[in-house]
Amino acid sequence: MRIQYGEIKSTRSTILQSKGVEESSANHIATVITESSTDGVYSHGLNRFTSIIENIEAGIIDVHASPEVVSSFGALEVIEGNLGMGIANASYSMERAITLAKTHGIGCVSLRNTNHWLRGATYGLQAAKAGVIGICFTNTCPNMPAWGALDSRLGNNPMIIAIPNGKRGIVLDMAMSQYSYGKLSDLASKDQKLSHYGGYDTDGNLSTEPSDIFSRGRVLPIGMWKGSGLSLMLDLLATILSGGDSTKGIGEKSSEYGVSQVFIAIDPTKNNTYESVTRSIEETIDYIKNSTTLDEDTTIYYPGEQSEKRREDNLKHGILVSEDIWLEIIKQL
Amino acid sequence: MRIQYGEIKSTRSTILQSKGVEESSANHIATVITESSTDGVYSHGLNRFTSIIENIEAGIIDVHASPEVVSSFGALEVIEGNLGMGIANASYSMERAITLAKTHGIGCVSLRNTNHWLRGATYGLQAAKAGVIGICFTNTCPNMPAWGALDSRLGNNPMIIAIPNGKRGIVLDMAMSQYSYGKLSDLASKDQKLSHYGGYDTDGNLSTEPSDIFSRGRVLPIGMWKGSGLSLMLDLLATILSGGDSTKGIGEKSSEYGVSQVFIAIDPTKNNTYESVTRSIEETIDYIKNSTTLDEDTTIYYPGEQSEKRREDNLKHGILVSEDIWLEIIKQL
Repeated sequence: MRIQYGEIKSTRSTILQSKGVEESSANHIATVITESSTDGVYSHGLNRFTSIIENIEAGIIDVHASPEVVSSFGALEVIEGNLGMGIANASYSMERAITLAKTHGIGCVSLRNTNHWLRGATYGLQAAKAGVIGICFTNTCPNMPAWGALDSRLGNNPMIIAIPNGKRGIVLDMAMSQYSYGKLSDLASKDQKLSHYGGYDTDGNLSTEPSDIFSRGRVLPIGMWKGSGLSLMLDLLATILSGGDSTKGIGEKSSEYGVSQVFIAIDPTKNNTYESVTRSIEETIDYIKNSTTLDEDTTIYYPGEQSEKRREDNLKHGILVSEDIWLEIIKQL
Repeated sequence: MRIQYGEIKSTRSTILQSKGVEESSANHIATVITESSTDGVYSHGLNRFTSIIENIEAGIIDVHASPEVVSSFGALEVIEGNLGMGIANASYSMERAITLAKTHGIGCVSLRNTNHWLRGATYGLQAAKAGVIGICFTNTCPNMPAWGALDSRLGNNPMIIAIPNGKRGIVLDMAMSQYSYGKLSDLASKDQKLSHYGGYDTDGNLSTEPSDIFSRGRVLPIGMWKGSGLSLMLDLLATILSGGDSTKGIGEKSSEYGVSQVFIAIDPTKNNTYESVTRSIEETIDYIKNSTTLDEDTTIYYPGEQSEKRREDNLKHGILVSEDIWLEIIKQL
């Protein structure tokens, strides 16, 4: 079914307010989630809304908490998330990084004791819309084995890089697992296979079956040993910069909360003209898109381009929503 | 054969000086290359030395050029590499980033018109040894197809993240292709297969044969579409921050020169104590290394750990050198 942007947003804001979230914060969070679904990232938009409500009800998310800057040195800042709403904390932190970038050319904010930010690209796009580069990453609970291991001791720690490009941005949003858990559960619920290997089955063989991969819990790191290493480095960076919990520490809790995140903003126009930056981006994007493709049905996309297309469609025709998920959500009204 | 550190270093410094490189710079470059071979990264150490000499002789590298800071704003700096020695330019740029990090907490230096830096981990370790986090990346000539493409329009753009840890550091050094070209050519020369798929053969099938992959030029990006996207983002970042050439621009030249690079340093002890940073790192490394492994012969390594082991061995017994390569090098004396 398709539902209009305004209805999705207001429904969610109403539900959040009924759970004690203050009005302006509820509107902001509802906007972020609606935007993710509008961009076609359903797995990290509407489809995750129920989990937020559950976490509020379980007392894992403190709806009355606000982020606080607890330490600062030049262009580096540390924010205490006080276990508040993940989206609110992350938006606030990227806003601080943008402000620092306007002052120092670059800003780096680390955030501790925060909760799931849902779609990481949100904060990259926030920077890009402000005309600056945005880089951010989060750690997660242990959900991916290190290369050579059977048990999960790494997070799949999504990393985002966004570059301003006109009104929105080019944005890469990637978990360190070949498929995000959101994507795996989305495909599992539709009984669809993965296009490529995404992890191991119970016999230790590479598999394209989301349900087999889930049952064994062995997701495949991107680039095998390389994604395993990158995941570890992102966890170390988030932990040592914020003073917050590592993937190990998060794994010792009853569920995934109190994660650590990093937000970096860089202003490319401090040392280069806006025109030269824009020209460079256009040239490279044109070059890549004009590659010789595998066949005539293949299109080369830049990161975030397919979301732009789904966005246009969703704004025009209403946002594509799974009926089950929608019924689940409006039950909360 | 095995040759002592001192002999390798002095031989190379002598050859560089005979090609017009000034003594202190020649000693520095010889040290960096010898260190890479000592760490067991032969493909980006001694084995590449001849290519530097060839590039000096071809006039691609200007041995008399020095890097210059051409623009600066707060913690952001742009350096003109003047087509000088890649190693000298990169070392200088990371040193500037470290200095900026000591002042502002974080520093970001972009470098344009520079040449191959050989082993990227060198500059990450440079930061780590100075007690700060080092992140750096470079673009390259087009040598990897975008996801869905047949022709190479992306670079394999290595990215490095290093974290201080005692005297040296934990360092991840990864090209965006599943195997670096250095590694592919190393294995091809030994007629060895890859342990995992590294690219496509002439029929478009995934292959573990370095020579087949070379002949078609279709190397596999890490994580398929993800590494393809990350490579593009790193090229865009290096280009728009430095104002230098993109992978597209480098591809229009007669050979790979005048690349763009970025060096970021972050001081984790500005907002956190040295003790808390060290404890966090130790805890996470211990946790990962104590994973349940696939079998009893498997060891979980942190990024850079295997180099540390090879380093001990090479320092004790002399550095492992291919006889052919050594004979090629001493011919230059």
